[in-house]
Amino acid sequence: MIDYFKADDWKIIEEGFNPTMNEIAESVFSIGNGMMGQRANLEEAYSGHSLQGTYVGGVYYPDKTRVGWWKNGYPEYFAKVLNSTYWSGLRIWANQEEIDLAKVTVLEFRRELNMHEGLLSRTCRVELKNGLRLRIESKRFYSLISKEYSALKYSITPEQGCDLRWESYVDGDVQNKDSNYEEKFWEPVTEEAAGDNLFVQVRTKKLDWHLVTATHTELYKNQQCLSTVPAVERRSKYASGTYKVSAKAGDRISLVKHAISVSNFHHSTDSLLMHAKKQLQKMAASTFEEHFHLSSNAWKQKWETADVVIEGDVKAQQAVRFNIFHLNQTYCGDDPRLNIGPKGYTGEKYGGSTYWDTEAYCLPFYLVSSDPAISRQLLVYRYKQLDKAIENAQKLGFKDGAALYPMVTMNGEECHNEWEITFEEIHRNGAIAYAIKSYIEHTGDREYLLHGGWEVLLGIARFWSQRVHWSEWGQRYEMHGVTGPNEYENNVNNNWYTNYLARWCMDYTATQYKWLLAEHTEAFKTLIAKTQFKSQELEKWAHISHNLYLPQFQELGIKVQHDGFLEKELIPVADLPESERPLNQKWSWDRILRSPYIKQADVLQGFYFFEDDFSAEEHERNFRFYESYTVHESSLSPCVHSILAAKIGWTEKAYEMYLRTARLDLDNYNNDTEDGLHITSMAGSYLSIVQGFGGLRIKDQKLHLNPHCPSQWKGYEFQILFNNAPVRVVVNPRGTTVLNQGSKAIQVNHPNGVLTLEAGESGKF
Amino acid sequence: MIDYFKADDWKIIEEGFNPTMNEIAESVFSIGNGMMGQRANLEEAYSGHSLQGTYVGGVYYPDKTRVGWWKNGYPEYFAKVLNSTYWSGLRIWANQEEIDLAKVTVLEFRRELNMHEGLLSRTCRVELKNGLRLRIESKRFYSLISKEYSALKYSITPEQGCDLRWESYVDGDVQNKDSNYEEKFWEPVTEEAAGDNLFVQVRTKKLDWHLVTATHTELYKNQQCLSTVPAVERRSKYASGTYKVSAKAGDRISLVKHAISVSNFHHSTDSLLMHAKKQLQKMAASTFEEHFHLSSNAWKQKWETADVVIEGDVKAQQAVRFNIFHLNQTYCGDDPRLNIGPKGYTGEKYGGSTYWDTEAYCLPFYLVSSDPAISRQLLVYRYKQLDKAIENAQKLGFKDGAALYPMVTMNGEECHNEWEITFEEIHRNGAIAYAIKSYIEHTGDREYLLHGGWEVLLGIARFWSQRVHWSEWGQRYEMHGVTGPNEYENNVNNNWYTNYLARWCMDYTATQYKWLLAEHTEAFKTLIAKTQFKSQELEKWAHISHNLYLPQFQELGIKVQHDGFLEKELIPVADLPESERPLNQKWSWDRILRSPYIKQADVLQGFYFFEDDFSAEEHERNFRFYESYTVHESSLSPCVHSILAAKIGWTEKAYEMYLRTARLDLDNYNNDTEDGLHITSMAGSYLSIVQGFGGLRIKDQKLHLNPHCPSQWKGYEFQILFNNAPVRVVVNPRGTTVLNQGSKAIQVNHPNGVLTLEAGESGKF
Repeated sequence: MIDYFKADDWKIIEEGFNPTMNEIAESVFSIGNGMMGQRANLEEAYSGHSLQGTYVGGVYYPDKTRVGWWKNGYPEYFAKVLNSTYWSGLRIWANQEEIDLAKVTVLEFRRELNMHEGLLSRTCRVELKNGLRLRIESKRFYSLISKEYSALKYSITPEQGCDLRWESYVDGDVQNKDSNYEEKFWEPVTEEAAGDNLFVQVRTKKLDWHLVTATHTELYKNQQCLSTVPAVERRSKYASGTYKVSAKAGDRISLVKHAISVSNFHHSTDSLLMHAKKQLQKMAASTFEEHFHLSSNAWKQKWETADVVIEGDVKAQQAVRFNIFHLNQTYCGDDPRLNIGPKGYTGEKYGGSTYWDTEAYCLPFYLVSSDPAISRQLLVYRYKQLDKAIENAQKLGFKDGAALYPMVTMNGEECHNEWEITFEEIHRNGAIAYAIKSYIEHTGDREYLLHGGWEVLLGIARFWSQRVHWSEWGQRYEMHGVTGPNEYENNVNNNWYTNYLARWCMDYTATQYKWLLAEHTEAFKTLIAKTQFKSQELEKWAHISHNLYLPQFQELGIKVQHDGFLEKELIPVADLPESERPLNQKWSWDRILRSPYIKQADVLQGFYFFEDDFSAEEHERNFRFYESYTVHESSLSPCVHSILAAKIGWTEKAYEMYLRTARLDLDNYNNDTEDGLHITSMAGSYLSIVQGFGGLRIKDQKLHLNPHCPSQWKGYEFQILFNNAPVRVVVNPRGTTVLNQGSKAIQVNHPNGVLTLEAGESGKF
Repeated sequence: MIDYFKADDWKIIEEGFNPTMNEIAESVFSIGNGMMGQRANLEEAYSGHSLQGTYVGGVYYPDKTRVGWWKNGYPEYFAKVLNSTYWSGLRIWANQEEIDLAKVTVLEFRRELNMHEGLLSRTCRVELKNGLRLRIESKRFYSLISKEYSALKYSITPEQGCDLRWESYVDGDVQNKDSNYEEKFWEPVTEEAAGDNLFVQVRTKKLDWHLVTATHTELYKNQQCLSTVPAVERRSKYASGTYKVSAKAGDRISLVKHAISVSNFHHSTDSLLMHAKKQLQKMAASTFEEHFHLSSNAWKQKWETADVVIEGDVKAQQAVRFNIFHLNQTYCGDDPRLNIGPKGYTGEKYGGSTYWDTEAYCLPFYLVSSDPAISRQLLVYRYKQLDKAIENAQKLGFKDGAALYPMVTMNGEECHNEWEITFEEIHRNGAIAYAIKSYIEHTGDREYLLHGGWEVLLGIARFWSQRVHWSEWGQRYEMHGVTGPNEYENNVNNNWYTNYLARWCMDYTATQYKWLLAEHTEAFKTLIAKTQFKSQELEKWAHISHNLYLPQFQELGIKVQHDGFLEKELIPVADLPESERPLNQKWSWDRILRSPYIKQADVLQGFYFFEDDFSAEEHERNFRFYESYTVHESSLSPCVHSILAAKIGWTEKAYEMYLRTARLDLDNYNNDTEDGLHITSMAGSYLSIVQGFGGLRIKDQKLHLNPHCPSQWKGYEFQILFNNAPVRVVVNPRGTTVLNQGSKAIQVNHPNGVLTLEAGESGKF
């Protein structure tokens, strides 16, 4: 854990240059726009430790999988997000000495991420070995408006007169940190360098993804545009233009680099280069400042429905905005083929693929903070991959349209090959169905069922109905050989959460069937024909639903995580020596597996999803029991516990759990921030506040609140989008105020009563 | 399945040359002497498909492991048996055309393995493209007397006069078939070529194993030794001598190659080359025939206590001798650091490491067929690795001298990295303890306990006592998270076999403790001090033994394989469509895991080990139940079922099971004979006859027989070594005759009565 970045309401600030922290800072200061992004690599040469990373959404590399012993059904490849052409690079020589922060003396240094406006900036003052001192300022952003555009403005102000040489380059000869045997995935296609314009086109091996990166460079002296003609250079996967300019002491020499990055994920391969040229020309016609103005306005607009304000705790304030900011940088719903990689555009780890994190953690964030169209794109993503999910299920022996969504995927195909995860951690399928329910509850858009929702639900319900089996000796349905959300258990029988979720999926799909048949008879008939649905399936689901085994233990009044859990050696986490933790570093895998220790919410995930099915006493008993064995060794773990603790009324416990996620990356809790940020778990700290402390629920399109204020805070407020209207909720020890900032009346439910708020009206509980 | 090799009592015969069968034949005709061995590669050049393989015991390569996601406790490397310097290679030109069976016309071809004498021979007649016809004869053997020596005699008889050029070479530039990225493991050290003598010394990367291969070549014309001086050549890892000789039609030109292969596994690195030179000189002083005579006599001697004769079924006769022959080629007990790799010296698959196959399948073969010293070496092997087993257990969190033997090993360190196997298939530990019991029962050498046996038993008992845990809710000891012998279940709780075996280990160790204390008080005190044994451990074991959960189901009268087995969908194998088999090729892993199908004996392995603990009714009920779910998809599976079926009296079933292993490699049942032979499972078909049909048991040094004769045979007999005396048992429908060929009286127990046979006496039941 570190306490390195300066606290600030709206900014992340690094004061002073610390080379040992550079890779961590590169992750933390990453910028992006939901379609592409970049780590905060220093623009000029840097010979110290750095993970150079530039990423564009959608393109990936199907690398060889690594596996001990092959098993039927394993995927053929492991998809890797591609470290891509680096557009923001500069090499700068002042009086023939190259500027490199690892070699010069850094006199002053400040790096800032302005989260309100989406701007990465840096000022620094250095002294070269040749005695020259100069000031560097840089600003960089990815446009939230023009999603193929990013820009850099880099200024140097020497304190003595000097000659400057700038090489502005585009470099496609980059390599993934996680490539095996240092293999490079990109091959050259074409390089052009014409005056101020550079173009580099590269393509991947195997899948033939093409990427064109184009830059237009402008040089200024004290706001005055210079017409220096650069000396251009081209080589394989690389193009550059070198500018020479002389400066007097105090002259401010600025280089602006407009960049376009386009791939054949969005355009035809043939037209790609031409498209890049046109876009570059168009964008270069406006200034850096004009583009930034548009983008920063879009950022401010996002904050209007996504912000959380915390009074009296600037670190908490900074942290929650940091999380909200990065989620919005990673995913904006631009394209239903994109999703949310565990590291977003901030690193390469976990292959940049889609996990169930999207549905279980990220979707609830977007549902309350963003335009419903964004959440719907996340649903459409899975709908578009339904065929692949059906194929995937077929590979595992399922039939008749049963769908099993992959654990890890880039394009709908499974990419993960640990059998206990790939084949058995099937609860992910349920989360995808549950996401449809959540979306409909929040938005009222039940018609989505006609546009993909029903088909996805049906595929999933069919899967569950085949995945359970009738136990003759038990006279009930059981589900064997699964891994629940708690991955510290593998291959168990009758995981309560999975069984409960499976039953719910079948019941919910049956309910939607009846509604569709009644309300959209004609349109639905087409879907029934398309999916070859037979009403006997309903009977089968009902029979399973009534006879599915759900383990529980009356004596303790708890649900049982899975068969055999209670026969373990049940020593609470609190009684484990600190030296044994974290278990995943100290214990061998078999020891973890046979222990009762829980990596992340499992039974409690079911309570989180289906809270209305259980009494307050059941909540408390199950929380008390399972929390005592939970080690929270997943970044996704504490938020669910925080929300449940808040619901039970254990605000201190809720706050303790909230703290474990809030500054995970900022304070480098897990000692891995340098690999990139934990994007998907960022939603957890947001939800801990809004759903946890705030008690926000939206059910049947009704707004429910049940706010508590942690004693550590003076108060907090959050802005959400409800029923297409911005709503502001202010909570402090004196009460809760709700402000309807929309144009229609809304109804607010609170334990103290129900209020109807007209447009613009506020009310207090 | 193929029907390719000719049936014969004592020989394996290939008639006619079939290039598509060459790699299979190379495996089947492999030769070795327990210290080293070789596939039956054609000596002259061969440009067709071939897996050239020459192996020396003890040297291995610690290659990188391949793994999906790393887990604590995984081994650092995967040990690979090394494909080593090829000594038997020749290149031969007749009238300038090279002899290559892929290019010339093969007029006649016969390859033979004489199992009675341990000789690989070949005769063939070919016509070259230049019209020349010639006859080739070759004989090759690995000496069973001089374990560093092997020899080749290769003769050519041209049908027309011709010029012959022979290049006799030693080539250390060989590569493992299973090397990643075609990496070569051997590096050059030195090459010498002096007259008829060639020396090549190579060393491995990483572990610095050195191997010197030396040959002395002699050339004969019609028995007359020629003094042709060869043209020698040396290059990296290679040396050769080329001889020219002219022959008239009918002249028989023979080349004899005496070979010495020595490694620093047995000698110091410094003296290795000198030792090889001395050995070569010594061996070259005698003729090929003289060496072969000694070796073949040793083979005949082995057969005197290991042979099985089957009347009326020449294929069965051939098969069982094939299996006995290969087991004796693979392991002779020469060195307690050697063991029995799954492919012996016939291929590279499975890394040539040691598995529990040794104790569970091979040891019983050696115990009845060989000098007890050979079996004892197998025990000493594990004793020498006890420290590593304790270290291995420590890595997994065990303490106080608990030992967990590895699943797969070369030198005592674990080499396997699937968590469900490495960490959980711990019953292997019990088999190692059980081997000590079997050895003592067969030999009466209970003093072995003082020389390693006790320490191994103690380490294993300590492991079990820590591996179980007390279940508070169950009020009993349980053992969670194990994989039984049936690897079609992973990570189960309370595997009956493992629990039963664990309990037995603790009980047996406690019993031996009392005996040692009483009979060897002084010597044992030293051991108690060395092992820091405390008598409280006995109390703990007893408490566990009395309270360990052993799942059973009264309603069916069966032991339950593990918790949850009976709640499966229990469809018998007989009701599975044939198209779904074998499951491991047709089903995904999760489907196999949650199915009831059993890969190899699990509960029944316990009945095999502990038969006297269970009634005949229990045997029958459990056999009937578990056999109906067993798919026998391991080559190690059918033999235990065969033995149990025979015991129950189901001779037809026993015969059916016996057939599934008997000709596994000869008839290429599994379509993988080209990779090498299934050495460890070869013991299974031997045991099916001797323990199964013959009902042979040796308990407390008493001989028990309970013979049945399969109706397919006229009769059978087997020779064993009992109490240091050869005993012959002849079984046919008229009864059983036992002949005591030793010099002391023996007692024979049979269901019909007990006979005492004086030396040389025979008796009939």
